[in-house]
Amino acid sequence: MRVLGIDPGTAITGYAVVEEERGGLRLIAIGVVNTPAQTPLPQRLQQIYTGIQAIIQAHTPAAAAVEELFFSRNARTAMAVGHARGVALLALVDAGLPIAEYTPMQIKQAVTGYGSADKHQIQEMVRMLLALPAAPRPDDAADAAAVAICYLHRIKLDELLKT
Amino acid sequence: MRVLGIDPGTAITGYAVVEEERGGLRLIAIGVVNTPAQTPLPQRLQQIYTGIQAIIQAHTPAAAAVEELFFSRNARTAMAVGHARGVALLALVDAGLPIAEYTPMQIKQAVTGYGSADKHQIQEMVRMLLALPAAPRPDDAADAAAVAICYLHRIKLDELLKT
Repeated sequence: MRVLGIDPGTAITGYAVVEEERGGLRLIAIGVVNTPAQTPLPQRLQQIYTGIQAIIQAHTPAAAAVEELFFSRNARTAMAVGHARGVALLALVDAGLPIAEYTPMQIKQAVTGYGSADKHQIQEMVRMLLALPAAPRPDDAADAAAVAICYLHRIKLDELLKT
Repeated sequence: MRVLGIDPGTAITGYAVVEEERGGLRLIAIGVVNTPAQTPLPQRLQQIYTGIQAIIQAHTPAAAAVEELFFSRNARTAMAVGHARGVALLALVDAGLPIAEYTPMQIKQAVTGYGSADKHQIQEMVRMLLALPAAPRPDDAADAAAVAICYLHRIKLDELLKT
């Protein structure tokens, strides 16, 4: 199964396509959609939408996962992330993908085994789980990989619990 | 000139289409796009996008205006509004409309003449300016009308300043 993880932001939206095959994880694609700061907001949102659309067309994931954020340091940041997150969710639902949202704690738990792991530990686990020579850069791309891994991990858990 | 005003929200997105003809304002259409609370967020955002798209197709505005919000009572609310605002802006830019964003103070100033008007005063001025028997309901629809009026008011001011 192939899953698209998205870490949305107005300036940088991270993405990662992760596949599970025979119990192992494989990184299919990873990167960011960058939008220039001098571009007006509506056009930046359009670039995020079409960027995600292109990633879906290129890598045909079967599902998508996005981090669920309940709060942020301030309301202004939350609004900006909300803009990007809104169009990201729209791109995913328009493509007909099932969408899962996970809290930061759920993602940490799925990737590292415990909910209070720090950023560095998560990135190191992402690197190991995907058998990469180095942790993905920038952080937004690594975070997108983590949420995709979380999806695959939880799907597997659900299947185990069913049998 | 015909302007679409949008007051975005995840549950209720207000809209109003206002036209200026021979110096007077005329309300062409007003209402809300409601999304059910039990519907998953991505589908609600899809309904907002397609709702705005349908309004644009039906009433062919030449421009659009949206309130610019820098802060909110809390980050969670800001994130929720950001989701809706992001897809609203996307629907407007996808339709090729020029988009203006105004602060709450700019809208108050344009509609009532001063920046510290309260909600009731704004609604009463919207009613008078559009020659309506009663203020539009709900508030989200009235706020959408106010931002559309703000656009037309500022366009006119710009033209006067040029001559």
